[in-house]
Amino acid sequence: MPVGNQVVKPGPPDGSEVFHSNCAAVQVFDHITSRWGIWVLLGLHHGPLRFFELRGRIEGISEKMLSQTLRNLVRDGLVWRHVEPTVPPQVTYGLTEIGSGTADHLTGMFGWIRDHAEAIVDTQVRYDDAR
Amino acid sequence: MPVGNQVVKPGPPDGSEVFHSNCAAVQVFDHITSRWGIWVLLGLHHGPLRFFELRGRIEGISEKMLSQTLRNLVRDGLVWRHVEPTVPPQVTYGLTEIGSGTADHLTGMFGWIRDHAEAIVDTQVRYDDAR
Repeated sequence: MPVGNQVVKPGPPDGSEVFHSNCAAVQVFDHITSRWGIWVLLGLHHGPLRFFELRGRIEGISEKMLSQTLRNLVRDGLVWRHVEPTVPPQVTYGLTEIGSGTADHLTGMFGWIRDHAEAIVDTQVRYDDAR
Repeated sequence: MPVGNQVVKPGPPDGSEVFHSNCAAVQVFDHITSRWGIWVLLGLHHGPLRFFELRGRIEGISEKMLSQTLRNLVRDGLVWRHVEPTVPPQVTYGLTEIGSGTADHLTGMFGWIRDHAEAIVDTQVRYDDAR
């Protein structure tokens, strides 16, 4: 589980690589890239969803893990939570502006990987054949 | 640990959100976003490093976890491995073109989060105060 205490020590001093231990950005980055954070952000990328709709979109996630992941992302301000005071209450989740920008980056990275999927699979096959 | 079997079922049919279970892209995405994959890719972003140099840049990573993370990323073709036949052999790791593009996306995402760190911390404080 993410603990948010990594430090990647600076490379060349261009000012962009100092990741302070325990700084907020590193902790949030850990929440995003936690086992399920990515899939929750991508799952909400097209619009708000009820809890069970979101759960239905992410194969293999338990109710407990989805709750915990959403709690972290709501606390970080990447996801909002709205409770409709019906009986039973209807709870909806959606991306904030910060969460939406994050999901854009994730989508871009996923697209980059997918665009190179063929080369990646070739490399995997060569790697396995060499062993 | 990543198992690469998530499915985020499609939202609106714009063709970009169908993540097939067990497809190569999802598996690679899991390797990248594994507990340590991100920090290894960011650690190599400025240029190749020896194993122990890389380890020294990532606080908290064990030799075993670094080896396993590198093995996945080499197998995926995101990281290359060069062994200099000295005694003892010197092993160097660096980013391939695919790995470098991935690290660019990660850096962009990390920058986005860092640029919003103040708003994020404010939200966290309000969230905690409300409890």
